[in-house]
Amino acid sequence: MKYASGIVVVLLCSVMTVTLNAETLSTTDQEILQQLKSQAQQSSLSYELLESLTTEVGPRLAGTEGDKKAIAWASAKMRALGFDKVWTEEVSLPKWTRGDLSLQVVSPYPHNLFGISLGGSVGTKRSGITAEIVEFKDLAALEAAPAGSLKGKIAFVSFRMERFIDGRGYGVAVGARGKGASVAAEKGAIAFILRSVGTDNNRTPHTGGMNYAEGIKKIPAAAISNPDADLLVNMLKREQPVKLKFKSTARRYDKKMVKTANVIGEITGSEAPDEIIAIGAHLDSWDVGTGAMDDGLGVAIVMASAAMIGEQAVKPKRTIRVILYAAEEVGFYGTKQYMLDHADEVEKHIIGAEWDFGIGKIYELRPGVGEQSLGAIADLAGYMESLGVGLSDKNDAKAQSDMSLLSNAGMPAINFAPDGTNYFDLHHTENDTLDKIDAEDMKQNTAVYTLFAWFAAQSGVDFRQ
Amino acid sequence: MKYASGIVVVLLCSVMTVTLNAETLSTTDQEILQQLKSQAQQSSLSYELLESLTTEVGPRLAGTEGDKKAIAWASAKMRALGFDKVWTEEVSLPKWTRGDLSLQVVSPYPHNLFGISLGGSVGTKRSGITAEIVEFKDLAALEAAPAGSLKGKIAFVSFRMERFIDGRGYGVAVGARGKGASVAAEKGAIAFILRSVGTDNNRTPHTGGMNYAEGIKKIPAAAISNPDADLLVNMLKREQPVKLKFKSTARRYDKKMVKTANVIGEITGSEAPDEIIAIGAHLDSWDVGTGAMDDGLGVAIVMASAAMIGEQAVKPKRTIRVILYAAEEVGFYGTKQYMLDHADEVEKHIIGAEWDFGIGKIYELRPGVGEQSLGAIADLAGYMESLGVGLSDKNDAKAQSDMSLLSNAGMPAINFAPDGTNYFDLHHTENDTLDKIDAEDMKQNTAVYTLFAWFAAQSGVDFRQ
Repeated sequence: MKYASGIVVVLLCSVMTVTLNAETLSTTDQEILQQLKSQAQQSSLSYELLESLTTEVGPRLAGTEGDKKAIAWASAKMRALGFDKVWTEEVSLPKWTRGDLSLQVVSPYPHNLFGISLGGSVGTKRSGITAEIVEFKDLAALEAAPAGSLKGKIAFVSFRMERFIDGRGYGVAVGARGKGASVAAEKGAIAFILRSVGTDNNRTPHTGGMNYAEGIKKIPAAAISNPDADLLVNMLKREQPVKLKFKSTARRYDKKMVKTANVIGEITGSEAPDEIIAIGAHLDSWDVGTGAMDDGLGVAIVMASAAMIGEQAVKPKRTIRVILYAAEEVGFYGTKQYMLDHADEVEKHIIGAEWDFGIGKIYELRPGVGEQSLGAIADLAGYMESLGVGLSDKNDAKAQSDMSLLSNAGMPAINFAPDGTNYFDLHHTENDTLDKIDAEDMKQNTAVYTLFAWFAAQSGVDFRQ
Repeated sequence: MKYASGIVVVLLCSVMTVTLNAETLSTTDQEILQQLKSQAQQSSLSYELLESLTTEVGPRLAGTEGDKKAIAWASAKMRALGFDKVWTEEVSLPKWTRGDLSLQVVSPYPHNLFGISLGGSVGTKRSGITAEIVEFKDLAALEAAPAGSLKGKIAFVSFRMERFIDGRGYGVAVGARGKGASVAAEKGAIAFILRSVGTDNNRTPHTGGMNYAEGIKKIPAAAISNPDADLLVNMLKREQPVKLKFKSTARRYDKKMVKTANVIGEITGSEAPDEIIAIGAHLDSWDVGTGAMDDGLGVAIVMASAAMIGEQAVKPKRTIRVILYAAEEVGFYGTKQYMLDHADEVEKHIIGAEWDFGIGKIYELRPGVGEQSLGAIADLAGYMESLGVGLSDKNDAKAQSDMSLLSNAGMPAINFAPDGTNYFDLHHTENDTLDKIDAEDMKQNTAVYTLFAWFAAQSGVDFRQ
């Protein structure tokens, strides 16, 4: 049964907490939970891990030297933090190199534009491409363009992403990034640019993954910053042809594979070691910032949460598994490999939560569990109330990002929703750096993941029921 | 006599407005002033001019092709706007080219830093310079370093500018930009970097002018973005040597002069054409943004203000002179030339105001006039009260920026203070683009300059008295 409304939830939490606690956790486990809560709210461990990752490793595009350093960093840190088991699982992906990009309006008003190749894009010929720009308000308008109408042209999607606390503007805008190049190519375009999928007004364009459709010519694709998109739109309003020179040395090596790895660490369960409470994030980042927010933040939070539980005198009954996924940004390679490597133990993943969104305090716990488990979830939410976390009145959540594949395979999940208002100002840009992260917010974030993992490990609840 | 307090001013304005108005302007001139006020608050002329300048011209570093285009643009626009006279006055300055810059931490943790050469900096040898960084908290700490202590090192000033509505943090921080390189060189340093003089957290470093002291070795100088400065500071905390590779193709051509020009336009006075009400801004910009804020905003405001007055059936009694100064950013070349070219008519500059700061509504009128003129200034301020402009209780203002040289030579001035809270987020960066400018704020800004120019032209007041 789904909760009828948020009001009902609040009543349950406030009136019935004691009863529910008693049902789910033993008195000792409740005491440890309160200790962990207090400890996590005071500890700067997660921030220190993030500072270390962004300073000592920095950008870590899957398969690059930075990525290799990150894998070594994560393995060493988990060992140093006292994880019972730490190992890596190899992941392969096709090589891609960003190279250099230059975008110049050559007429009527010469300007250098701030652009960035989309991940996976091909480059141009050495001398570049010079052609007229045709603007489309959004992907649908591009899709509606007549066949052949873009012959020899550069298609430009000028749609601007909207800002929301839950980042829902992203889903509306990102389609153009993913498939715009192939849609444009099908109509004859020789290159594709789009307004960055981002909410800022910085001259820091947003990269991100894109795909080429089978059987369609692969044309180069880049995002330009919001101010540069505004400039182009203003120029195009004058109803004179606007010509762009597009030069890129990006390169796909579709048959040359590079190696990376999922990094996994466990605090082994004392009573049911084969039952897994999964908390995860992705270790790779784009190559342009230091990946502080995306997803160093998640990496640091889940590592610190498990470490704090591991330090307790009483070991968790179930195993807490930290999964640091490889190669998320470039196409979910790590999580796909994980699903293959762990196909026979999907059922053993009792419940999971990933962090791959947001840079502020968590304001909501969104469950996706069996109906009989909702009482335990309300109990968990009760412990988080003083952290400012409310309980969603829906029960259809999936785990975020990589871990959504485990969700799709039947794993119960919690989606913890942090403030995402400013997330897409920084996402996939050079600006994704440590200074954007609030150390105090991280304490709350870490407390939430710590309580979740401990609660799930000790509860004995089968969240599939 | 200076006003004793802001409270006195408010009383004067509210109680005595009718009397004061009657003293300074004729009834007809008051009516025209009200018309101009209403018109300016509705007109988008200044925004349209700014959109045109930033779109059709863009960056305009003094002496470059962009600058030449800007001079042609301004001359043509002033003619099209019905100015009675439009002319240019040649200005020369030494050539400088930015070239390319790369800054890479090579050990212990390799990172590419986002930096920008300071204006006027020399470059490095072709292969670059690799040396250890030594951090100083501020310029004073660098100045206190023992002689010879920086031999073979790269000096790094990590001082962070503070944010204030009036931008006063700039003065505290900018000294290191201007003279840090020579101070460092004197102690043996082979290159100089500083944290950008800026209040943002973007990976868009702030350029700006710098000077070399006579007789001291010229060493290359660059600013790094705030996030990159944070990264270096964090790295240096680990107390291991941090080595930086600094490579720059910036070049000074001290003996090769390039040409630019002050662009001047007038609405000629009907009764006292040789008495000048000066409103100004600088036409040049740095080469990295489109110079929307610095100082396209000022250019557009003063051009639109004069144009609106010129369109009235009744011509102003005194001449309204719009001065678009050349080469402000690179060392006040335009204003210095103006002082030479107009040495014999400084006395004829009745009063002046420049716009070269801020990106929001004007909140205060700061006079710098003769004591007998303060009544008229209070009268002027009364007209601006409904625009949200208060009157300062001080009477020591100078004109901003370029026009401070006319102030120093005895010209009375008004300094209109706009909101500068966010100004130094964008100042001298790639982010100085049109999207940062609020078209509604520009209406207020333009109304203020229009009222000022009309009032001063019609008042007959000798503001030196």
